[in-house]
Amino acid sequence: MKINTWFGVLELGSSGKLLASELFPKDVRELALHLLSLRNKRQDMPPEGFDLKTAAIESGFADSYSEYYSLLHEVTLETVKLQVSESLTPDQRVIQAVEALDDINETANSLSERLFEWYGGYFPESGLSGEALSVFITKYGSRENVPPEDPLYLKAQNSMGAKLESADESLLKGFAESVSSLYERRKQIEAYIESSMETLAPNLTMLAGPMLGARLISIAGSLDKLAAFPSSTVQVIGANKALFKHLRARAPSPKHGIIYSHPLINTSPWWLRGKIARALASKLSLAARIDFYSAKKDASLEYELEEKVRKIREANPKPPQKRQEGKAKPKKKRRK
Amino acid sequence: MKINTWFGVLELGSSGKLLASELFPKDVRELALHLLSLRNKRQDMPPEGFDLKTAAIESGFADSYSEYYSLLHEVTLETVKLQVSESLTPDQRVIQAVEALDDINETANSLSERLFEWYGGYFPESGLSGEALSVFITKYGSRENVPPEDPLYLKAQNSMGAKLESADESLLKGFAESVSSLYERRKQIEAYIESSMETLAPNLTMLAGPMLGARLISIAGSLDKLAAFPSSTVQVIGANKALFKHLRARAPSPKHGIIYSHPLINTSPWWLRGKIARALASKLSLAARIDFYSAKKDASLEYELEEKVRKIREANPKPPQKRQEGKAKPKKKRRK
Repeated sequence: MKINTWFGVLELGSSGKLLASELFPKDVRELALHLLSLRNKRQDMPPEGFDLKTAAIESGFADSYSEYYSLLHEVTLETVKLQVSESLTPDQRVIQAVEALDDINETANSLSERLFEWYGGYFPESGLSGEALSVFITKYGSRENVPPEDPLYLKAQNSMGAKLESADESLLKGFAESVSSLYERRKQIEAYIESSMETLAPNLTMLAGPMLGARLISIAGSLDKLAAFPSSTVQVIGANKALFKHLRARAPSPKHGIIYSHPLINTSPWWLRGKIARALASKLSLAARIDFYSAKKDASLEYELEEKVRKIREANPKPPQKRQEGKAKPKKKRRK
Repeated sequence: MKINTWFGVLELGSSGKLLASELFPKDVRELALHLLSLRNKRQDMPPEGFDLKTAAIESGFADSYSEYYSLLHEVTLETVKLQVSESLTPDQRVIQAVEALDDINETANSLSERLFEWYGGYFPESGLSGEALSVFITKYGSRENVPPEDPLYLKAQNSMGAKLESADESLLKGFAESVSSLYERRKQIEAYIESSMETLAPNLTMLAGPMLGARLISIAGSLDKLAAFPSSTVQVIGANKALFKHLRARAPSPKHGIIYSHPLINTSPWWLRGKIARALASKLSLAARIDFYSAKKDASLEYELEEKVRKIREANPKPPQKRQEGKAKPKKKRRK
């Protein structure tokens, strides 16, 4: 009878006596990897009540109980570390980045609104907001420092705004710097998501673009979950509210969730959006599956999608008739 | 008959003929200041239908209608600018700073929570959070860079956390830098509020401390509004929810609003808090009035407050009896 243990493979006689053993090297990392693989196999396990530690000493793997226990401790610790590392797969890291990006966006917006209101008392005519305003303030501070070559020079000279005292100026400059730093961070995270998505999910990125692709993965929870979703789910990801309203009440089913931000949909006339959303979702779902199982880029996907969208556009050149006249007609499938 | 105009004082005969005039210099700023003072006086105004522009030319102030109108345009513009500057009084600037501080606090907290979660996958044992964590990550990035002299060295060496790839490391470092920048900003704004409050409202600052004083002004809307509040209002500023619950239903009246954060109250035993809050609010209200009308520091306020609080403590050494036995007694004023 052969049994697998964390330190080697043992050959036992029918009476439970140790006949032969094939021991693994005493390398903690190797042993940990082996332990992880055992966890998945679950065959040739030791019988219940089997004394592993005595067998380890008998087979010559350990010299004493204390050596056996200290090794076991190290190996299990290493195993946990490996498991933690495993849980930070590339898609989980992209999801972290997407969530951080959302936080950054929200905070940058709220702080730049505050900056806008605050600086408005001193230079209301600037016409700047958001990142441009924070960069402007970081650069000049008071509008008195705007040089003649700046396009806002004249406005700054003739501004209605109050004079900015130096204490307030350094405060506002510091605040603007922090806001600029957040906008910088946003660009950095976006660049990270773009480059990660290119390797993590090349097909999804090709069809959806890196940001939309990353958001799909983020809402799904992971790439493998996204790959497991039917395309009808992909189509309405992010439209939870509308979907539940549809399921509960008589509201129409949502035509699109976050994939609405895809240019193929949001630049199309309204009567095509539902059809294109369905075509897009089906290709996105396919792309996620290819990405998850092979990660090879398949350029034909993009071509097929374009072809499909072209056909939809040709088949529906005009908006459909209004419902009013159709009220008497038998119920028809209206929404696709 | 004497009339005040924006360009000078005119002496008119009974028929409305110009007899004499005392003209102001043609200085735009001077004229604007004069116009503002006229706005408040409202006496010796020109009679209705009086032709100001002809009088200006007759008196020799302007050579032509066009000169008159262009000067008038400049002067009114300057007046508006002066009014805008006036509206940014020191207390309004402190209020802006307090509001900015609240925004910064909120965003710094939400971003540092994100950072905590994000970095937790790589170094869960750090035990750091908030500003300390952002400073740590800005400094070292990956836990592999923690030097032996750092107290976290051993934990970093034996961490369960995953290995931090270099792309993720620079992302996390950048994020941590932005968070640190927000914490820096917080300190700067706090320092600004402290120094502004010292000159704006020295008595309020002496009694309440700069931050609580600034918050009181901020919620009141301005220093003069705070000075106009009765002390019972000052006592419950910031306790809107509890106050309206009291007014609507049978809830007890709130004992304190944001003044609860004052050490005299929050370090006192519960049965003294209401009494001390009332004493504190009355002195704070007095302090705000002194600050608004004279801005001279009056050290006796602090002494009086301490004296009053000492008396309250002496008079109420023990918690009051529970209500149960008092139910049959006639209604008494319980809450002070």
